[in-house]
Order: sequence, then C-alpha cells, then structure tokens
Amino acid sequence: MLRRLLLRSRQRRRYSSSSGGAVPLSTPTFAVFGANTGVGKTLVSAGLAAALLNSRSPSVSAVSYLKPLQTGYPADSDARFVFARAPALLRASSSSPRATRLVASRRTLFPSPAVGAEAESLHENLEKVVAFGRDGAEEETKVLACRTVYAWREPVSPHLAAEREGMAASDDEVRGCVEQWLMEEGVGEGGEVWKVLETAGGVASPGASGTLQCDLYRPFRLPAILVGDGRLGGISSTLSAFETLLLRGYDVSTIILEDRDLSNDKFLLSCLRNRAHVLALPQIPEDPSDDLTDWFSESSSVFNSLKDSLQSFHSKRIERLNSMQRKSKDLLWWPFTQHNLVPQDSVTVIDSRCGENFSAYKIKDNRMMLVPQFDACASWWTQGPDSNLQIELARDMGYAAARYGHVMFPENVHEPALLAAELLLGGVGKGWASRVYYSDNGSTAIEIALKMAFRKFSLDHGILADSKTSIKNKRNVQLKVLALNGSYHGDTLGAMEAQAPSAYTSFLQQPWYSGRGLFLDPPTMSTKNEICNLSLPQSMQHCPQTSGFPSLTEVFCKTRDTSSAADLYLSYIKQKLSEFSQSSNSDHLAALIIEPVIQGAGGMLMIDPLFQRVLVRECKSRKIPVIFDEVFTGFWRLGVESASELLGCLPDIACYAKLMTGGIVPLAATLATEEVFESFKSDSKLTALLHGHSYTAHAMGCTAALKAIQWYQDPSTNLNLDFDHMKLKELWDGALVKQLSSLPNVKRVVSLGTLCAIELKAEGSDAGYASLYASSLVQQLRREDDIYVRPLGNVIYLMCGPCTPRDSCSRQLHKVLNRLCDLN
Amino acid sequence: MLRRLLLRSRQRRRYSSSSGGAVPLSTPTFAVFGANTGVGKTLVSAGLAAALLNSRSPSVSAVSYLKPLQTGYPADSDARFVFARAPALLRASSSSPRATRLVASRRTLFPSPAVGAEAESLHENLEKVVAFGRDGAEEETKVLACRTVYAWREPVSPHLAAEREGMAASDDEVRGCVEQWLMEEGVGEGGEVWKVLETAGGVASPGASGTLQCDLYRPFRLPAILVGDGRLGGISSTLSAFETLLLRGYDVSTIILEDRDLSNDKFLLSCLRNRAHVLALPQIPEDPSDDLTDWFSESSSVFNSLKDSLQSFHSKRIERLNSMQRKSKDLLWWPFTQHNLVPQDSVTVIDSRCGENFSAYKIKDNRMMLVPQFDACASWWTQGPDSNLQIELARDMGYAAARYGHVMFPENVHEPALLAAELLLGGVGKGWASRVYYSDNGSTAIEIALKMAFRKFSLDHGILADSKTSIKNKRNVQLKVLALNGSYHGDTLGAMEAQAPSAYTSFLQQPWYSGRGLFLDPPTMSTKNEICNLSLPQSMQHCPQTSGFPSLTEVFCKTRDTSSAADLYLSYIKQKLSEFSQSSNSDHLAALIIEPVIQGAGGMLMIDPLFQRVLVRECKSRKIPVIFDEVFTGFWRLGVESASELLGCLPDIACYAKLMTGGIVPLAATLATEEVFESFKSDSKLTALLHGHSYTAHAMGCTAALKAIQWYQDPSTNLNLDFDHMKLKELWDGALVKQLSSLPNVKRVVSLGTLCAIELKAEGSDAGYASLYASSLVQQLRREDDIYVRPLGNVIYLMCGPCTPRDSCSRQLHKVLNRLCDLN
Repeated sequence: MLRRLLLRSRQRRRYSSSSGGAVPLSTPTFAVFGANTGVGKTLVSAGLAAALLNSRSPSVSAVSYLKPLQTGYPADSDARFVFARAPALLRASSSSPRATRLVASRRTLFPSPAVGAEAESLHENLEKVVAFGRDGAEEETKVLACRTVYAWREPVSPHLAAEREGMAASDDEVRGCVEQWLMEEGVGEGGEVWKVLETAGGVASPGASGTLQCDLYRPFRLPAILVGDGRLGGISSTLSAFETLLLRGYDVSTIILEDRDLSNDKFLLSCLRNRAHVLALPQIPEDPSDDLTDWFSESSSVFNSLKDSLQSFHSKRIERLNSMQRKSKDLLWWPFTQHNLVPQDSVTVIDSRCGENFSAYKIKDNRMMLVPQFDACASWWTQGPDSNLQIELARDMGYAAARYGHVMFPENVHEPALLAAELLLGGVGKGWASRVYYSDNGSTAIEIALKMAFRKFSLDHGILADSKTSIKNKRNVQLKVLALNGSYHGDTLGAMEAQAPSAYTSFLQQPWYSGRGLFLDPPTMSTKNEICNLSLPQSMQHCPQTSGFPSLTEVFCKTRDTSSAADLYLSYIKQKLSEFSQSSNSDHLAALIIEPVIQGAGGMLMIDPLFQRVLVRECKSRKIPVIFDEVFTGFWRLGVESASELLGCLPDIACYAKLMTGGIVPLAATLATEEVFESFKSDSKLTALLHGHSYTAHAMGCTAALKAIQWYQDPSTNLNLDFDHMKLKELWDGALVKQLSSLPNVKRVVSLGTLCAIELKAEGSDAGYASLYASSLVQQLRREDDIYVRPLGNVIYLMCGPCTPRDSCSRQLHKVLNRLCDLN
Repeated sequence: MLRRLLLRSRQRRRYSSSSGGAVPLSTPTFAVFGANTGVGKTLVSAGLAAALLNSRSPSVSAVSYLKPLQTGYPADSDARFVFARAPALLRASSSSPRATRLVASRRTLFPSPAVGAEAESLHENLEKVVAFGRDGAEEETKVLACRTVYAWREPVSPHLAAEREGMAASDDEVRGCVEQWLMEEGVGEGGEVWKVLETAGGVASPGASGTLQCDLYRPFRLPAILVGDGRLGGISSTLSAFETLLLRGYDVSTIILEDRDLSNDKFLLSCLRNRAHVLALPQIPEDPSDDLTDWFSESSSVFNSLKDSLQSFHSKRIERLNSMQRKSKDLLWWPFTQHNLVPQDSVTVIDSRCGENFSAYKIKDNRMMLVPQFDACASWWTQGPDSNLQIELARDMGYAAARYGHVMFPENVHEPALLAAELLLGGVGKGWASRVYYSDNGSTAIEIALKMAFRKFSLDHGILADSKTSIKNKRNVQLKVLALNGSYHGDTLGAMEAQAPSAYTSFLQQPWYSGRGLFLDPPTMSTKNEICNLSLPQSMQHCPQTSGFPSLTEVFCKTRDTSSAADLYLSYIKQKLSEFSQSSNSDHLAALIIEPVIQGAGGMLMIDPLFQRVLVRECKSRKIPVIFDEVFTGFWRLGVESASELLGCLPDIACYAKLMTGGIVPLAATLATEEVFESFKSDSKLTALLHGHSYTAHAMGCTAALKAIQWYQDPSTNLNLDFDHMKLKELWDGALVKQLSSLPNVKRVVSLGTLCAIELKAEGSDAGYASLYASSLVQQLRREDDIYVRPLGNVIYLMCGPCTPRDSCSRQLHKVLNRLCDLN
C-alpha cells in the first residue's frame, strides 16, 4: 500500500463511537457497483458527474466523488480520471460549449478535518471550481471534488494487494471514512450537492479485509447504480450481480451498460420490468489511445437520462419517507398501542435493519437523516442476527423459498423440518425430548403444550378410563393449570387462560377470560446496590428472610436444595396444592406451566430458581406434566441454550419460538417426551392431536431455524461462546451493572445473558403497566443516544443477540448509565 | 436455426402429458452451469466425462452428455468437442495409456425413439464405445454418448439466434427433450451410468424462449456444477452466479475454476465454507492452436477430484432421501395425524416444489425417482404461486430478509407493512375497511376480530357504560357469537369457542372448549346430476322446498332477495334470535362470524349465499358486528378477490391469511372499519387492543403479501383474469364437472373459483370426519396419477392457485374423473 490518506487511529475511534451507517438524505448519494470488473464504472461516474454539473433543473452546485479502495495506483486512479474528465465532458455536453470556463482551485470546499494539507498536496483530494455560463446568463460556480482513500500498487483485488503489500484496512476504518465523507456538508452555492461512491471490481469483489463490496458498504445501504455488462454473457452477469445486490437489501435505481449490438439492455429491461431503470451507452472504443472525447459526446444524452432517473429515484424516496408517518397513522392499527397517545411525529420510520441496528429516518440537527439505532428491544425478544448472520439468513430465505415455497407437512417430510427437529432434540431438548410439534408462534405452541399435558394427565389419572360414550360427561371435570402470578404465555385465549389476571385479561380486553389456574406467588431475585436480593411474596412473609447473595453464581448453586429456603418453598407449595384439592372434587391441576428463571412480559422478573426447581419436582412426583415456556428464555437468551440448564431440572413439554429462527420469520415448536407422544396414539384418528395451522413446519421457518441455531452454537460464528461452548461470556459489563444497581433512582437490576433490565423507582400510580413514568428517559435514549428502547411499565431493558459483540453492549450500557446519572 | 433434432410436436405432447420434471436418481446426473460465458464449461464436461469413464470405483460404464441449446453451430458444437476429446483424455489420464483401445460404433446404446437415423447420420447424436483394459486385466466396454438438441448458426445468445434465424424452441419443448433424456435407461455393462447436461452461457443467460438457463431447467433441479471464473473480477461473478442458483433453489455440489494466480479458488473456498466444494484447474493455454493435450493431462487429478466430489454428493443425497421416512417417524409429531395409521413407507418425502407441483421422492417402476405431484390440497389452501411467482417471491424474500430482517412494529412503520396495508384496503377491504391489524395466522386473526367485535358491541349496547370499577362485575355478562353449524375458524381456544361442537372440540381434544355461541343450521347448495340443488336443514323442513338452479349464476343472483326463500330464512333467523334472548338476560350475541359462501374445513360446504346475506342484514340492523372469516375464501380462492363480492354484502371486520402471502410464509391481517377502530380509542393505554405477536407485520410476510396480491390482480401476470379483471375465468372445465356430478358414487360437487370438491357417497360409519372411505381413491391418485390429494372425510378436492393454467386444471380433473369411473 502506498498511503492511507486518512489517519487510521483517528478514524477507528470516530467510527466505533457511532454505530455506523448514518446517511444524510438532503444530499442525493449513490453507489456505483459493477456487474464485473472492467465494465466502465469510472466512465459512468465521470459521465454522471458531468451531467450533474451541467444540470440546470435542479441546479447542482457540487459533486463529491469517493473511491474508497484503489488498486494499481498510481498508474490507475479512478478519482484522478473522474477529476480530469468530468470538466472536459462538461464542455462536451454543454449546449454552448464556448461559454464554459474552468478554474482550478485549492480551496477546500468540503472541509474535512482528517484530510490535511498532506493529502491535498498528494493530489488525492482533488478539487476544482468550475465556473461557466450560458448564452449571456450569469456565471455559475460549480465544485467537483474527487477523493481516493486507500490505494495499493498492484492491479489486483484489494484483498490480495493488501495481503501482498502488507497493508490492511479494516472494515471499520473504511466505513469510518465513508461515514465521514457522507456527513460532510457541501458548500456549493445555491444548488444541490451530489455524492457518488465508486466501489472496486464487481458487486461481490473482496475489499481490503476480504469483506465483499456489497457487504462492506451495506450499513449505509446507498441506492445503487449497477454498471452492467454489454458483452456476450453480460445478461447473465448483470442479472446475477443485480440479485447479489438484492440479497444484501440494496435498491438498484438504474442499470446502465454498454450496447454492443447484443441488445442486452432490451432483454434486461423486459426481464426487470418495474424493478430498475435500464440505460444503454454507445459502444466504448477499444483503442487505448482514444481519449474518449467523441464517445462521451455521443453518450451525453444517456448520462442526462441517468441523472434524471437518479433524481426521480431520490425525490420519490424522500417523498415516500416523508409520507410514512402520516399514512401509518391513517391506515395501521398497532398492537398494544393507544393511538391517541402516539403523535404523528413520534412514529419511528424504519428504513432497514443491519445486524443489531435499525436504520431510522429522522430529522436530526435540521437535516433529513437515516440514523442507525440500536434495537434494544431486540424487536421484541426475537433478534439473533449480527450483520453476518443476517446476510446468511437472507441467502437461505431466498433458497428455501425457491426450493420449497411451502409444502404440506402432515404425513410428509422435507429436509428443513427434519434437520431442524434433529437440532432441537439434540440441543434444547437434549436429555428429555423426543418429538417436535411445529406451529406458528409462542401462543400456539403453548396451546398445543396444554393439550398435550391435559391428555397425558387425563390418561395418567384415569379421567379418560371410562368408555367413550361417557367422554361427553367429562365436561364437568375441570382441568386447570398450576402457574405463577406475573406469568405470561401469549395472547390467544388458551394461552391467556393459563396466566393470572392482569391488564391483558380484563373484561375490556377479553370477555372470555376466566383464568383457569391456581396461581402461586413466586419469590424473586434482583440486584440492588451490588447485591442479589431475594424478595419473598407476602404469603411467605411470616418466615425468616434469607440474606443477599454476592452474585448469581450463588443463586443458581444446587447446594441451596438443602437450605431452609427449599423447605419453606416446599411447604408453601404443598399447602397451596392441598387447599386447592380440598376446595373441589371435580377440579384437577393437570399441568404446571412456568417461564423458567425470568418472567418476561411480567416485567423481567427473575424468579428464584430454587423455588421453580422445588415446584417442578413436586409436580413430577404427583404426575402433573411440566411445561416450560421457553418462548422468551430459549436459545441463549439467558446465556445458556435452554434456561432449564440454569434451573437444573427438565420439563415434559417445552415451547420455543422467537430467537429460534434468528428473528426473521415466525415459527414455533413444542417439544415433548415420548411418553407424552404415546398418550395420543391409538387406532383412531380421533385421539390424534387435532391442532394445526396452514404453515405448519413451513420450509422457510425451518431453514432459518437450522441456520440460526447452528450459528449460535458454533464458536467460529458466535464469538461470545465461553471456552466450553456451553454458555455465553458476560455481555453486560459487570462493573457497569453494579454501578447501575447503586443509583438512587434504580429499584433493581436483572442482568443475565443477553438481557439487562432496570426497574426505575416509582410510587403509586406511576407503578404498573399503564405507567408512562419511564417515557422521558425512553425518548431521550431514542432521540439523543440512538437506542431504540421499549419500556415495560417502569422497567427499561437492553437486549442484544447471542452474537452481539460485547463492546457494542458496553457502549449502549454506558449511554443508559449516563442518562440515569443525569436524571438523578 | 439449423435443425431441431427431436421432433417438435411429439415432444410437446410427451411433456405436457406429464407435469414435467421427473428425474431418475439411480443415474447420477449433474447440470454444468457457468459463472459467465467462456469460462470453460465444455472443457469441464469433457474432463469430467473422461474421469468418469476412467473410474474404477465405482466402475462407470457409460456417460451421456446433453447440450440442449447450441449456438454458433456447426462451427461450434460442444457435444462434438466432448465426444472428440473425452476418449483422448481417457488415454491421457489413464495410468497405463498403451492398454487403452478405442472403438467407434454406431450402436445406439441409449435407445431414444425420437432420435432417429436422421439425427445419427447428422452426427448430432454421437456415440462411441470405448474399450480398454489395464495391466492384463479384462477388457472393459465403456460408452460415451453426446447429443445436441437445438442448434443455431449465429454465435450469440440462443434467444437472439432464435429471433434472428426465425426458429423458436419453447420451454416445454426443451424440457420435454431433457425429460426424455433423463428417463432413458443406460445399458452400460456392469457399471454406473452418469449423465451431464451442459447449459448455455452463464447461469442467467436466456435460452431460446428468453427464459433464463437457471429457470429453464428448474423443474428438474439437477444438482449443479458451477464453472467459476478465475480471472480478475472472477470472485464476484462466481459468487453472484452461485447466489443466482441459490435463488432458484439449486444445490451447487462443486465450483470448479481456472487458477490464474489470483487465488480466486482459495477465496471462494473460505467464503463458501461448507456450502460447496471448490476446485482449481491449471491455467488454460490462450494459444488457439494448442490442442490442450498437455493441459488435460495436467488437469486429470483435478477432474478425478471433481468426480469424487460429485460421487460423494450423489451418494449422500440418496442416503439422505432414503433415511427421511424413518427419521420422520422417529422425530416428528404431525398435526391432525394418528401416527399409528401412517406406515413408514407411506410417508411422502418432498424434495422441493416448483409452482403447483411437489417433487416427491419415490420408488416407481422399481426405480428411485423424483416425481412431480400436483399439490391438489394447495398445501392446505395457501398456495398462489405458479413457477414464475415462486421465483419472484424467492428474490423478494432474500431482499426483505437482507433489508429488514424483522423490525419492531407498534408505533413504528416500515414500507412493506404500509404498502401491504394500502393494497389490502384498496382490494379486499375496498368500500368498507379503513384499518389493518396484522398477526400471524388465521386463528390469531380471528381472536383479534372477536376482541374487536366484542368491544364495539359492548360500547354500542351500553355494557361498558358504567364506571370503570364495575368492569370487573361484567364477568357475569356473557358475550357470545352467532355462527353457523359446520363452521371452523381455527385451532386456538378463542377461535374454537366461536365454532360449533365437532371432533376438534371434544373433551379429548380441548377440555376447555365450551362453545360460546348460538349456532344456526344453514341451508346448503351443491351440484348433483348437473343441477344446483338447495338443501334445507331439518329445522326448516316444514317449509316448501325450492327447486334446483341450472347454474351458480342463478344461485348468486340478487333477485332472490325477494323470493320466498328469503322470507323463510329471515323468519328462521328471527325466531332463533328471539329464543336466545328469551333464554337468558345476561347473554348477548355480540358478533356474527361466518365463512362467506364456502365452509372449508367443515367439508367444503357451499352455504346458500342468500341465507348469509339475510343473516348479515339482520345482524347489522341489530348492531351486532359482522365478521367475515375470509382466511380460506379470500384472495380469489372462490374466483373473486373477496367472497363478499359473491355475497353482495359487507362485513365490519374481516380476517385474511393463507393465500395472502402467496403461500410462502405465515401472515394474517384483520381488517376493520373506522367505527370499530374508534371504539378502542381513549386517553388510556388500557383501552387499546392489547393483543400482539412477536413477528407482527414482519417485513418478509408483508413483502410476500405485496408481491402476491399484486400478482393475482395483474392481468399481465395472472392470465386467468376475466376481461374486466374482476373475476377468474372458469378453471374447472364445466363439462367435466357436470360429468362428475352425474356419477352414481358421487353425492355432490362444489366447483367455484380455484376449488373443485367432490363428496363421495357413503353410508353409516363411513360418513364423517374419521372416515377412511376415500382412502383407496386417494392412494390411487397419489401413486398412479401423481396428484397429491388430502381428503376431508368423504370429500376429496382439487385446489389450484389463482394463476394455475386452465389446461393443468383440466388434466388433473380428467384423471379424477377416470378414477371415479373405474371405481363404479
């Protein structure tokens, strides 16, 4: 490598301090990608720059061109080519060429602190003022700035050049430079500023680090100009390149390619109808001595069309983004949302997602921006993908849709359903489960689990022992669940019936809810002032309090089985069960259902694992089937693949969803033991489990699950795995968590696995679900700190994916800590 | 074009009589695709043929090579090249070259009826016997057959050549030839037969009709060898080509490419870890006079590795397919399935789907085969895609996953959710709905609809008028639904409570079911002996029967509103409602819920639309909110976009799912009027509709809905649309349907839109859900006729998508008619 023209250390700091990917939208900005190398990306950039500078409607005052990675330097410099050529083309394409005048200048119109005098003198930050007028009109001043960031001598792919010349440029560094360039404000006079980024090689050519071009620039998701291939075979390479860009979530505005009498452009146009604009350029002279003046002159109308098509693309995009808040208020009906409480300008317009971040459209510092926001609600507890997994999932989703679409499941088998079942049984179901029942979401998985448990219980307890005809008389038998107060298992009626009364279950919400359970009060754990404290429910308060624990390790320790707390729990449970059985002859507790360790929707409450263990054992001894609702806790959410590992006991049935598919499409699975499965077998179809949904075991969901579950488990893709690959390293910095727990306005903290929940102190009407207490904090975090937080009453939480880098977690946690300190 | 070497008319007949895409698996068969044109596909084919013929473990007795489309002919003939080169390579790569002997032969070892003496004399069906022995071993006989099917003179893309030379080859014709070639049994002696198909140009190069190579051969989904590009930029074009194949559902076994000192192979290998084998060939001499003997000799070990990698790929594939039935019986728990009644060998192994067809793995005529099966259950009523829409959806799924993954919805907005809402409100919701509430499946959409209706009813009827504190006392108020016997609204408890008792709702299945409704007996319509007959329920039998209708047009005619049947219905409804209100003071009928026109799961019963219209009007007059469950009937299922168009009246709330996403991922929507929406507005979050699922409005589902809904509506993509684009043409041939309705073993036929249902006559225990009566017919249709039928008791049905070509429908219907005639 010859030179890094921006200072490395400085950039790294800059970039990693933001989450990367902020894009101002007031400046139309496009990325030029190539269907292949040598298809004319630089010619297109030069022609476009000229067309833009020449434009009167709208008037363009400046064009800023960036070539982040250049090889073959200094013999080749695309920036230099564009810099040298565009002004000449201006003359060529201007309607009255003689009126044009060019002035070279050293004035730095794009002030760029990291690009100093050194760079300018190296002519890698090339900048020119072009002044021209037409037909007696006033003279206009235009600016063209062309910049190269990293350059290598050998004319090969940047990854090879970087390797051979011993000079690397990390993705963060390159992105940092691009972000800085994007954020620069142009100071052209009275006209638009445009920016053009030219990539290196083809769409999937490796950059200096080996990251593909399409992946390297993905956080910005700049709209793409694809320079196609007009040669024989060029239809194929252009379409494939187009699809590669789609598979990274890019929008391709325009495809432009050389016309070599093969009509590739016409075929592409008919093939891509409505998906992209297609333009054909005259054939490029092959004679290397040709200075292309004639070709550019012939091409000027095409470049004008290109400019027009980009302009229209850009303005439609802005229009769409600007209309979305209003339209959403008019057409949508959001769940869990009082529409009267959502002002139009508070609606978050999400343009895309990249790994853990949304890209949100907003006005920031008076500029229209796309701003990355850390998705701290992990889009409601589903998200697993880092940006690499997201790309892999996108590829797999395309493949699964193309290979299978959706195919019938009962009595059939397809590979993704089978392989995902094997993974589930060998992972979260290891040691107990032998069957996988697929459905659509946590709620349906729970309803299926209840049906399984009730059948098993009924068989085990002789309720179905009579002849078939008397089954109808079973209606006076009431099967109920044993569950915990504060639990939540989903919003369909069957799942709701298994949870204790709450705001969700009121007559106003669900007139059919009756609460078919015995709901126990569980003891909870939380950290305050650096100590893990146990809170006993009122109903146990007559017993002696236990003291706090120095850390969660002691809380989960199995030696507590012989503690006095264990005795206390067992006697409480036995007493409640005996009260229940005395109150009715026809009522049976036919299933235990719990969320192991953490109650999610209930407010991120950590239940004492000892209590749950004692409860499970007692139910097993009474042949009451045990259901673990792992919809929230499953797949490393709490730092281990299944929360049953933390509890130290196993269920008969368990439900999974959310993280299972990597957070990309809905899919759920209810796992069961062979004994549970057997209780549905007979010679009659009527005893089979008659519950299903249209998309049961749909191939796309199973394919996503396959990829995600493996990705989380694999130390080569999940760098957060501990040395034995059985649990995650600490993601939320322990010291910061302790600091948080000691703040006066913090009631408690629960930090476990991917979750860090903070309950704020609140009194009276501020407490509870309807509270808006946390909302000013939430607004600040969203607006100022770019963290998308969704509160649960007084609880705010940060949630990451199993693979989220720890430094990213710490960055977010720091921001929260600072805000909370400010609030004090 | 020079010649079509297979007879055109004959092929067309052959191909279209099957559904296309049968692939024998006993013969390892691969397709050679190119990352670009000119990357060496033919060299690889020749080298591979030689390596195969030279192979001892396993011994390969014959290699059959096919070049379906050849341009630049006769100067270029890839078949001739392979034919000429492979035997020479045999010598080059053999360990004891002198022992090899070659014998040219005219013997036709691959008998191919459509390829006559003419073709052979044209040397386009080239075949050679190669006999060789080694080190005194016995002489072995090997066969190499190379064939070109279509050839054009100009060396351009086939679509241009076909256009310029005025000679087309339709996709059906080309596929017909390929299928015939695939079905040929090799007669090599005592060894394996291998087949290699070489495509034209790059992966996405157009064939003669303009269909891309990757799409043209998709029905066969042959495992791919991708010949990559070793030049500068070749990493990008190879990866993009690979992704294009993934987006068509292909498995790429091996990537092989020239090594030009750029280490493209190493980069690809690290990039594609676990996804494909990567092999590098020595650099190909550029001198055109080089006869490549040395190059092939240098390359022989690479071609041996290629052969080994293909062999291992093929045997693993077979192994996997063979193990799937057993594994599925061991691990899966199918919905609606009595596992005891499913013998292992009756499990259908589905390898892929292409448009309306599954590709099922089975042993047919003693051969391992992948056989296309018409998916007559439209994979449980979800399927919309023809093979073109499937490809489009696959692209969109990749794009949506890459752009959005999944992002939070409440209080937010993203483009797919908004655009899909606009389409829904402008389509199925046109004229009444103003809000879209997304959820996951039909069942959840129904639960949401019920919550909406109950709130609206409670407000309208003063049930919530008291102070907030008394809301708890509302628990003695019983809100019920008005519904029809035979209805079905999903399997979650809330949806089940809204349907009448059935096998699904027994204590055995769902101990919590109580049936919270007044269930009316509806009059039904069906065709028998060519006449549409009305059947009145027992409870109306005292009234005079109406006579039959000549066609459905008369059934749907609005003039019936003034008929005596309308009076009869109204008085029946009023009487039932008055009986209900007299029986209890605290019970209210707070919603009407119906499946408009057809009750699906209830047995494909057509309800008299007049009855439903009268019922809806009566409820509206009583301010009982009306819910249409259009989960089954929506999106052209019954020939119109919404079944409310057939009924001639509008709901207050309606539910959609299934076909909405084109049948690719789960998504549901509940549409409502603004009045319903308003009943949830207040200043308190507690009155908001608190029902949601993690993946609410997930971007992939909404993107799929966007594509599918538009595709169905657009006359350029849906050729079944009638001239005014308001309804579908008749898909099930009226004459055939009448014939069916006249068969003695047919009780009734319902043919409407994409549905053709046939109830078989059955007595006593054969009737009803548990019946296995239809099973022998079903088995015959599945096994002999390649129609995948799933019966509903005694009802068998054929269901296609809104865009399924009518001739395909007729073909299936013919087969069913023939089987039923045989049964008589």
